[in-house]
Amino acid sequence: MKDKVCVIGSGNWGSAVGKIIGENVLKYPGLFEPKVNQWVFEEDYHGQKLTEVINREHENPKYLPNIKFPSNLWAVSSLAEASQDASVLVFVLPHQFVRGVCEEMRGKIAPNARAISLIKGLEIKPDKVTLFSEEIARQLGIQVAALSGANIADEVAQQRFCETTIGSQNKEDGELFHKLFDTDYFKVNVIRDHVGVELCGALKNVVAVGAGISDGLGYGSNTKAAIIRLGLMEMRKFGQTFFGTVEDTTFFESCGVADLITTCSGGRNRKVAEAFAITKKPIDVLEKELLNGQKLQGTLTAQEVYHFLSSRQMANDFPLFTTVYRIIYENAPLESI
Amino acid sequence: MKDKVCVIGSGNWGSAVGKIIGENVLKYPGLFEPKVNQWVFEEDYHGQKLTEVINREHENPKYLPNIKFPSNLWAVSSLAEASQDASVLVFVLPHQFVRGVCEEMRGKIAPNARAISLIKGLEIKPDKVTLFSEEIARQLGIQVAALSGANIADEVAQQRFCETTIGSQNKEDGELFHKLFDTDYFKVNVIRDHVGVELCGALKNVVAVGAGISDGLGYGSNTKAAIIRLGLMEMRKFGQTFFGTVEDTTFFESCGVADLITTCSGGRNRKVAEAFAITKKPIDVLEKELLNGQKLQGTLTAQEVYHFLSSRQMANDFPLFTTVYRIIYENAPLESI
Repeated sequence: MKDKVCVIGSGNWGSAVGKIIGENVLKYPGLFEPKVNQWVFEEDYHGQKLTEVINREHENPKYLPNIKFPSNLWAVSSLAEASQDASVLVFVLPHQFVRGVCEEMRGKIAPNARAISLIKGLEIKPDKVTLFSEEIARQLGIQVAALSGANIADEVAQQRFCETTIGSQNKEDGELFHKLFDTDYFKVNVIRDHVGVELCGALKNVVAVGAGISDGLGYGSNTKAAIIRLGLMEMRKFGQTFFGTVEDTTFFESCGVADLITTCSGGRNRKVAEAFAITKKPIDVLEKELLNGQKLQGTLTAQEVYHFLSSRQMANDFPLFTTVYRIIYENAPLESI
Repeated sequence: MKDKVCVIGSGNWGSAVGKIIGENVLKYPGLFEPKVNQWVFEEDYHGQKLTEVINREHENPKYLPNIKFPSNLWAVSSLAEASQDASVLVFVLPHQFVRGVCEEMRGKIAPNARAISLIKGLEIKPDKVTLFSEEIARQLGIQVAALSGANIADEVAQQRFCETTIGSQNKEDGELFHKLFDTDYFKVNVIRDHVGVELCGALKNVVAVGAGISDGLGYGSNTKAAIIRLGLMEMRKFGQTFFGTVEDTTFFESCGVADLITTCSGGRNRKVAEAFAITKKPIDVLEKELLNGQKLQGTLTAQEVYHFLSSRQMANDFPLFTTVYRIIYENAPLESI
């Protein structure tokens, strides 16, 4: 039985990895069905259905313009149809849709199905941190790996060299996902620590807010390097304190140090925090001005992490995370960074 | 017996740490003699002796202008006089002077003397890598620690926050050096792995050349983050292959990841390599144009590392180091980075 792959999601990142997956399945005709379904949330695109445009033009002009897909990547607007009998599920969609999507898929996927989550973020409540890979595993009763790294969708789509990290508890699944994602320009390293991989992807944004404040204050590159380093150490401490399985070496991977460097160099979290330090305008005003009203991830995560930590009397054990929170939400002086 | 501290060297970095050491010995009057001698290579400064200017103005206008020293830091032009009976030696001078200086000091320092090396670089010959801390230890028969980190002298002198790492095999010496260097704005972390600390300070420059080539080619931030990460991993592999005592965690310290980030963001190695990729001019021409003829450290180190590795048939085990060498010295295509 060959594996049937379904990509769930078709935004900027979903389109970039859909292209890679479509190309890679053809390299292993003994392992994978050639056709890859991609679930696309149906939208109108200049009077046409987006799925029809994608399947005719082999391109997603809305979310990844000017990049051609292989013709075996097939856009499907019905989730039930797209995931029917799929044995490999690639989740790459905004986290707020995860639960609804899983509910709709239950009972339709192949009995031996396994999944990988490229979903960004975590659900942090005062009493509990939920990884989306674990939420999918619980909802569908399957094994779920995670992928995260220093990967900007457009650069990946343009075949600029970068690396990424897959965390897979199951070794065979790890090898399968390596085949599905690895290319000359998108180098995959597979490790076991899927929890660490996912934590890095969310917590890095808090560190980037700290780095942006440092930039806004005009501090030098050594101060910023210290903030990045201390941030990496708090990410590690958070993982190892609340998830026993998180390993030191994960933070040397692309999902760790490399993604953190990129996020603290460019990236919206750094940029909005820099503007916050310079202009002193509230974050919600800056979100309107700089992000068309979209919510900034790093400040939200800082707030959630703070409430999680303070409900355990542990806020002082994570001074960088806590200082970022206090500067943004409690008017602590910028210089306290 | 109180410890008598001598700072050997008075350039930009020597002046910045001389200021800290002068201030810190006064915080521990029970441990240290208040007067700190600083050996200054005598030069003419606008018709006056540099040592006289320093001792009158409490400032080194040639190497660290506009920064005031504490008055207990005393410039001495005679090395024998400066180091007489010193029990704590701080080496902070260009590496080519190390052997001569040690010869002159032999027999004059206190019997219980110990030292710390802030010397940048390594001596890499095809048959052997020599750490300057070990060279000093051999020459003087004393224990030698090492200090390295993401520290730009001017930023440290201006009391901008940064971190640094001290590697000290001997725990008591480590505590002593912590007292001598640590301040609110210059945070010292002491570890045991002095070899790793010193290796990082030299090998980072090779990685920075790679990062500069990537910048010169117009590659994105993810590619650069991948180069930085792969470089960190090759630094670790080099240390662990050729020095058994090098530890994983050293690379999470300021001397490791933080210094590497700074060096690959700003810094002359990155800058000249970027110019090399853009202009295709030979490195020695760029050294004349951009560095007033000073030699670039990273390219030299890349060459030395390459000869060291290839004499062991191990060049291919360090693909980033080797590719940097081949691009600079063997006309390999820039894109091979």
